[in-house]
Amino acid sequence: MIRDLCDGDRLARQLDFLREIDRLKTVYRQTILTDRSRRENSAEHSWHLAMMAALLPEHGEEGGIDVNKVIRMVLVHDIVEIDAGDTFAYDTKGHGDKAEREQRAADRIFGLLPDDQGAEMMALWREFEERGTPEAKFANALDRLQPMIHNYLTEGHAWQKHGITARQVLERNKVIAEGSEALWAFARRLVESAVEKGYLAP
Amino acid sequence: MIRDLCDGDRLARQLDFLREIDRLKTVYRQTILTDRSRRENSAEHSWHLAMMAALLPEHGEEGGIDVNKVIRMVLVHDIVEIDAGDTFAYDTKGHGDKAEREQRAADRIFGLLPDDQGAEMMALWREFEERGTPEAKFANALDRLQPMIHNYLTEGHAWQKHGITARQVLERNKVIAEGSEALWAFARRLVESAVEKGYLAP
Repeated sequence: MIRDLCDGDRLARQLDFLREIDRLKTVYRQTILTDRSRRENSAEHSWHLAMMAALLPEHGEEGGIDVNKVIRMVLVHDIVEIDAGDTFAYDTKGHGDKAEREQRAADRIFGLLPDDQGAEMMALWREFEERGTPEAKFANALDRLQPMIHNYLTEGHAWQKHGITARQVLERNKVIAEGSEALWAFARRLVESAVEKGYLAP
Repeated sequence: MIRDLCDGDRLARQLDFLREIDRLKTVYRQTILTDRSRRENSAEHSWHLAMMAALLPEHGEEGGIDVNKVIRMVLVHDIVEIDAGDTFAYDTKGHGDKAEREQRAADRIFGLLPDDQGAEMMALWREFEERGTPEAKFANALDRLQPMIHNYLTEGHAWQKHGITARQVLERNKVIAEGSEALWAFARRLVESAVEKGYLAP
């Protein structure tokens, strides 16, 4: 056991958590990689969003957002999927009990950490979910935009597989506008172009 | 083309870069996941290090480090592998021309970004490689520690496959001490325990 090698309970709890979250690498999403070799997992997706958060904040709200907080938020936002699984964006049934499943997951997984750090992770995750702050709005915008780009670059792979229409994509992802008008304008052009190219049903 | 949908050259260059780095998800390392299902890729590895950076800095140097900088550094540190490939820690031949291969990769990949952001990413990567600052020392400590933990949890998988000895592991990873005495003490106990359990040759 790793924890027996630790000098002190704090490090033991931190390493327990860090081992547990390795499992996020085996939670597979509907989106595929741009080279189409396989489905994307939620750990590498979170890394990709963190890079977007570091590079795109100039397109966010005027007045500025706390970029470092957005980075931490996207790093943490999917960890609950270790227990709760990934719910496909357009799966209305799965969304029914998503909040409850994810809260139980958060309690268990963040509960592995020392109390102060568990509370901090829980707060970041809740803030992301509630979408009330400029940081959470921007983080959610990135989380919606990234799979749209991947779908576009793979000729609509997940959209076609699940028979998704342009109307559904626009409805589901309009919250991007809350985080960034510029990215929402881009996303709308992307949907238009996807319809023109036949990647996405009108 | 995604760039034709962009309003402005900055967003176009940012999205070109963000698309290019999707390829880091297909750079596979020697380390396997703790569930032993497959080799780890460098994108999800970077995410895991970022979570370690967020949670473990209390074990770093007294006086404190800029945690947000460490997080950004580990997010970026492996991007050059898209062109240069992952060089196994104990591959002395591969390390011969590693610096040159990686510099060419950095020039090309970070060069996709707007100049200011490309320079920022390049500086973060160079700082990590040069290991001169407290942040770089801590980031390197995490980068060395994580595969040791994965090897331990998989009964020495990559160590055994490549016939690595405890002496090699200690020699290769002693730089952990520069970033954190506490994590180095843990790492040494882990190596001792791995030898006792037969995961690692003495």
